[in-house]
Amino acid sequence: MSPLEQAAAFKVDRIRSALEESDYDAVLAVSVENVYYLSGAWIITQRLIPDRLALVLWPRSGEPSLLVCSIEETLAREQSSIRDVRVYEEFAVSPVRAATALLTELGLARGTIGLELRTLTAHYFAEFEEALPDARISSCESLFNRVRMVKSPDEIELLARAAMVTDAAIWGAWAESRVGDTEADIAARMRSSLLQGGADNLAFLVLGAGETAKQAHPLPRPVSPGDGDVLRVDFGGQFEGYYSDLARTAVIGSPSARQRDVYARLWESQQAVIDRVRPGARAVDLFECGREEFERRGLDFFMPHIGHGLGVGLHERPVLNRFGTEPLEVGMVLAIEPYHREPDGTLYHIEDLVVVEAGGGRVVSRAGRWETLPVIA
Amino acid sequence: MSPLEQAAAFKVDRIRSALEESDYDAVLAVSVENVYYLSGAWIITQRLIPDRLALVLWPRSGEPSLLVCSIEETLAREQSSIRDVRVYEEFAVSPVRAATALLTELGLARGTIGLELRTLTAHYFAEFEEALPDARISSCESLFNRVRMVKSPDEIELLARAAMVTDAAIWGAWAESRVGDTEADIAARMRSSLLQGGADNLAFLVLGAGETAKQAHPLPRPVSPGDGDVLRVDFGGQFEGYYSDLARTAVIGSPSARQRDVYARLWESQQAVIDRVRPGARAVDLFECGREEFERRGLDFFMPHIGHGLGVGLHERPVLNRFGTEPLEVGMVLAIEPYHREPDGTLYHIEDLVVVEAGGGRVVSRAGRWETLPVIA
Repeated sequence: MSPLEQAAAFKVDRIRSALEESDYDAVLAVSVENVYYLSGAWIITQRLIPDRLALVLWPRSGEPSLLVCSIEETLAREQSSIRDVRVYEEFAVSPVRAATALLTELGLARGTIGLELRTLTAHYFAEFEEALPDARISSCESLFNRVRMVKSPDEIELLARAAMVTDAAIWGAWAESRVGDTEADIAARMRSSLLQGGADNLAFLVLGAGETAKQAHPLPRPVSPGDGDVLRVDFGGQFEGYYSDLARTAVIGSPSARQRDVYARLWESQQAVIDRVRPGARAVDLFECGREEFERRGLDFFMPHIGHGLGVGLHERPVLNRFGTEPLEVGMVLAIEPYHREPDGTLYHIEDLVVVEAGGGRVVSRAGRWETLPVIA
Repeated sequence: MSPLEQAAAFKVDRIRSALEESDYDAVLAVSVENVYYLSGAWIITQRLIPDRLALVLWPRSGEPSLLVCSIEETLAREQSSIRDVRVYEEFAVSPVRAATALLTELGLARGTIGLELRTLTAHYFAEFEEALPDARISSCESLFNRVRMVKSPDEIELLARAAMVTDAAIWGAWAESRVGDTEADIAARMRSSLLQGGADNLAFLVLGAGETAKQAHPLPRPVSPGDGDVLRVDFGGQFEGYYSDLARTAVIGSPSARQRDVYARLWESQQAVIDRVRPGARAVDLFECGREEFERRGLDFFMPHIGHGLGVGLHERPVLNRFGTEPLEVGMVLAIEPYHREPDGTLYHIEDLVVVEAGGGRVVSRAGRWETLPVIA
């Protein structure tokens, strides 16, 4: 088998066993993430033109089908590992009607069908119910989430490369930046390095300094941060459909002793959480570990989660919050991202990517040297 | 009034009169596009983390409210033109429950409520119906679509600038490109110019050559197109939340007489459609005009639409297809994009941005000289 076929086989095995253990006669994927994950076809209009659905129908027995708008047919046939590609004509036929016709053709009109009810819109869902009044329909997100939660070696390699490129882009851009540069200047260097490093696209660039370092998701402004301002970024790209997602905090000019100290305490807390990563530990254990480490060091633990899985989705399972009872498994990939909030509202944020291995967590996102507070001088 | 306040006032007038003419006691926006349009707050996680809703509640009488996840509060208060900002805590409270509580507080639990049922997921809609069993709920997309369809002078200026920057990025990147460059090289130049030109982000970069010029939405590959290959791009960025969206077609090396001729016929057809743009003409009239012009020139008219509105959404009303009965109005902004398909499947595509003015259509997307077939030599 070629590497590509091996990667597809890993996913096919996971979806087949998940279906086997479930009650579904078929599941139907409609989200960008699951359609790409299951088919390998990257249909960019799925996100840009949400009405124009692409769907993967995966029956319990038999082969899956990919259903796309007619203008995507050539690309779908070229890229998809699913051989049965079907098309519908936009505006003339609703994509949902095309999907229910296919379910009927497969004899599943009275079957137990799993849909992504957290993605499928209420409008399309109503069409579904109307066309298949005798089907038993329920939400199958958790099935897909469990399937995607453990990554193949290829997915891990890709996520690690994406993380390293993103980290190097931040490190390099900050090393080139000087007091007096605007937030927009710094952001432009980060973007440019990310694309040169091989990202297919930017996903997001959050950058705040001074006053906007108090916001969770500020955008870079054409203003120069002042001496002593905290500068914080949360930065991600897309690499062959997979995300990177890293956060870094620095100070402009001359950091105070307190700033260096807060950073050191945040770093130690994050490291303590990473040290707790191992197969069998639960998401909530990492969350509670973060809380304890913060409290011990006098940091403000206010975020409702301390990390999340990463893959074709930006926030995948497991989410490291107080409700996360999933035990970690080998092959999970976690973004671990503690936030601290200063009394004046300024946020410090460090986010790294950690692969769950048999022996513990392996950090795969540190191209730069972040152990001590970075300074843009 | 400051320009920013003027821009907000334009939108407030439009939404208020739309509500006045409707039966709704309130409408609730949940899409990225409408929440940004109505509030001015750009909450990037709305797209990245779809479960984390941001909502705008706009009652028929009284003031609107913006409802966001607690970690977005600071940004929301800073950016939003809506003064009543409310928050919910993620994981602890469903955003829909927070919204239905607000509706109840306003005495609208038994009212006529408009929701975006083409955006709101089936999962969240079910919560809605459960929490407000006595409300009369219906889809209000068409109200928002009509509101957004006509742009303010500021929106037009921004869309025109975005289009010009995007066109200049394509023109400049192609002028620097040579036979032997890979698709990825050419794409990298286009991206870099777009960001230098002031885009906040790339939205999409479709680039195909030779075999992949037959696909509607191919991604650039690390391969060099061959002599005589058709190269086609569909390229867009985001500028303060507004899209650009342009398509251009070229030939690598030495174009054939047929290639030049096909391009000339496509250009003339597009120009004929643009010449038909005026207030009062209907979307379907432009579509049928495109069909006639294609048929007269022996081109293959296969696309189900020939253009669309552009704004905070990529495909806005009016859509120029055979179902489009809306008459054009002054202030609409249209992407006019005829596609031709050669017998071997190769696609030619030209897309320009046109503002509807009292005297006709004004093209605002030609920084380069595209009248004759562009050649990358």
